[in-house]
Amino acid sequence: MSNNVLIAQSGGPSAVINASLAGAIYEATKEDQIGTVYGGVHGIQGIIEKKIINITDQILEGDFEKNIELLKGTPAMALGSCRFKLSKEVDENYKTILNILRELKIKYFFYIGGNDSMDTANRLGEYFESQGESIIAIGIPKTIDNDLLMTDHTPGFASAAKFVANSILQVYLDAKVYPQKSVMIVEIMGRNAGWLAASSVLTRLSKSADGKPDLIYLPEKVFDDNEFLTDIKKILEKRNTVVVAVSEGIKNAEGKYIAETDRGGEDKFGHAKLGGAGKYLEQLITEGIDGIKTRAIELNILQRVGSSLTSKTDIEEAFEVGKKAVQFALAGESKVMVAIKRLSDSPYEVEYIKVPLKEIANFEKKIPAEMMASGSDVTEAMMNYLKPLIEGEQKRDYTEGLIDYYNFNLSKTI
Amino acid sequence: MSNNVLIAQSGGPSAVINASLAGAIYEATKEDQIGTVYGGVHGIQGIIEKKIINITDQILEGDFEKNIELLKGTPAMALGSCRFKLSKEVDENYKTILNILRELKIKYFFYIGGNDSMDTANRLGEYFESQGESIIAIGIPKTIDNDLLMTDHTPGFASAAKFVANSILQVYLDAKVYPQKSVMIVEIMGRNAGWLAASSVLTRLSKSADGKPDLIYLPEKVFDDNEFLTDIKKILEKRNTVVVAVSEGIKNAEGKYIAETDRGGEDKFGHAKLGGAGKYLEQLITEGIDGIKTRAIELNILQRVGSSLTSKTDIEEAFEVGKKAVQFALAGESKVMVAIKRLSDSPYEVEYIKVPLKEIANFEKKIPAEMMASGSDVTEAMMNYLKPLIEGEQKRDYTEGLIDYYNFNLSKTI
Repeated sequence: MSNNVLIAQSGGPSAVINASLAGAIYEATKEDQIGTVYGGVHGIQGIIEKKIINITDQILEGDFEKNIELLKGTPAMALGSCRFKLSKEVDENYKTILNILRELKIKYFFYIGGNDSMDTANRLGEYFESQGESIIAIGIPKTIDNDLLMTDHTPGFASAAKFVANSILQVYLDAKVYPQKSVMIVEIMGRNAGWLAASSVLTRLSKSADGKPDLIYLPEKVFDDNEFLTDIKKILEKRNTVVVAVSEGIKNAEGKYIAETDRGGEDKFGHAKLGGAGKYLEQLITEGIDGIKTRAIELNILQRVGSSLTSKTDIEEAFEVGKKAVQFALAGESKVMVAIKRLSDSPYEVEYIKVPLKEIANFEKKIPAEMMASGSDVTEAMMNYLKPLIEGEQKRDYTEGLIDYYNFNLSKTI
Repeated sequence: MSNNVLIAQSGGPSAVINASLAGAIYEATKEDQIGTVYGGVHGIQGIIEKKIINITDQILEGDFEKNIELLKGTPAMALGSCRFKLSKEVDENYKTILNILRELKIKYFFYIGGNDSMDTANRLGEYFESQGESIIAIGIPKTIDNDLLMTDHTPGFASAAKFVANSILQVYLDAKVYPQKSVMIVEIMGRNAGWLAASSVLTRLSKSADGKPDLIYLPEKVFDDNEFLTDIKKILEKRNTVVVAVSEGIKNAEGKYIAETDRGGEDKFGHAKLGGAGKYLEQLITEGIDGIKTRAIELNILQRVGSSLTSKTDIEEAFEVGKKAVQFALAGESKVMVAIKRLSDSPYEVEYIKVPLKEIANFEKKIPAEMMASGSDVTEAMMNYLKPLIEGEQKRDYTEGLIDYYNFNLSKTI
């Protein structure tokens, strides 16, 4: 059989990137037209170094269906990742990759990742064509940032959004126990696009949330120190506990990241001024408003791999996107990415389509104006967009109190 | 009916403190000898200000069993909390409290909290006696720090431990995706006792953990900068990804908290030196070992209220402890705390006993020597102690992707 598959993962981790991997493996393994499924270890960087495993052999060991199910719920990249970018000009790396693909009789190449990875998939697809090769290159989207064009949303985003929304609710329940006035600032990932910070609005769906968060700051809007303090003071007049959701990527009027603003010296308590958007806001309050207990926390990397709080909708879509990639490949499509097209909010319905990789690679989708409210909030349109994405919970198996995950043996290279 | 109950909560939040509240409410509501259950809002501080709600009325609204079940799974204090301490000498506050209790015909007073709260319960119990009152005061233990004497462990600890163990596993899965060598430092709560940091060892129960964390630093042992760097270098020779679990409360040879050590100035990259034990360790590596990607993260307050990853064992025990408090009270016991006595590790079996409050109040239980290994690790004895505590998962209900919680109406005071 010569119709083999090579699949690899790239970029930053998400809670469902392995669900897409599982979907592609599942579909390819079922498909008679396909031979062996190989996995590149650490993305194209590993492929260039010929670090490749035989996925078919490993996944068929033991119970196939159970392995697929476990892999679906395993966060981060089961095949490892890289931040390696191909040069714009064809170089030795292109040739090395093609030689390895020829050697392994690869007919279908799948690359799971964000916009950099879509660029890689596109370049390789173009290169294969230019060499007269019929090898197909398909991109499978993944990013918690939700910043890919031409897809309604990206797998990985919804689970991160669900983690953020539930975490902010828990943080609020924690913060409100004391009678003293306090401000909790929650810093959320997203350097240039505020989708994940905006998803903090989902907390309001809970009747325990009392409408929190009170304020939502996005990188798409200019952040102003004085407006922030005015807003906080106004809310503190009416409420005991203020919850602020802030993107790590907010910028000031000069377009500079707040987190990188050099404020210098020490605060009025003699503490060194700390980095991070959340810490910056905390210090604004500490210096600008008397006697308010203020604390900034980062949700940090658990928001992308917090697999105890994933969205079933997200996991199933990620799986489906992986399966569709194989179907598009078998239909002869190349240099495309599988995208999600929303047909309806309620009932929530989507279909999977193919979009040209070159229209996605290296672009970033920002939040459109109609989804942002005046002041520091988002609109009902944003809520309607986000709401269906976090529906449903993935059943988890535990062993001795720890969530079960699937592991490939990455050192067993071919 | 004059045998009424007053219950209140105090100290820092945990994921299961409301399970103990639910247990006490459940038992008291079922019990014919007991009249109304009242709740003090924000602990004794609220009681002094007569901020008291009628729990019986509120919990019987709608479906009693379902309300109890939801309350069991709600993190932080449903009645609010305080950090208020009674003075050692009897003062106006004692008298105010007694007058309010008399007015409400309270026969049983329950206080849920850590060692400060046990001190409060004890002082009130002694004061009631000195005034010839037959009001019973009982303490219900709660602390994620697990630092109360005379109880095998404290409700709240196991769920925090389970959150820590699963989070470190997820952090490791995230960290190991890149081929570059890296160190992840996870800072864990526990100012003086290292129980929660020690529970990071539970991560090793997962076959996906590859034995992580590599190093565990506890406040019970002196932390030495050079030993730390030597340990890290040794592990980096053999492994790509190093995971360090560190208690926020580690101290140097002078007994000073590392987190408060003034290192002054800037690091070699011109960044201000940051606070926190994790950040301190991160900077030690950045300055002491070349070219190693290092990142410190705090699990922050989600480790105490992260209700998506609680231990069913913990929740059920917390509930039982609340029920037992009512049973001990009806048996006429006063100035006691409900404690958990372990009968066996495997099969795990416990019984609930009463212990004198005065032997618990204001003491802290540290990790005994036999549970700490030489170097930076814990022993098999610690693992055997911890293992049964995180068993079992609490079923959760969700509405629109958010975990369901129970709320009292705290403004509906009597």
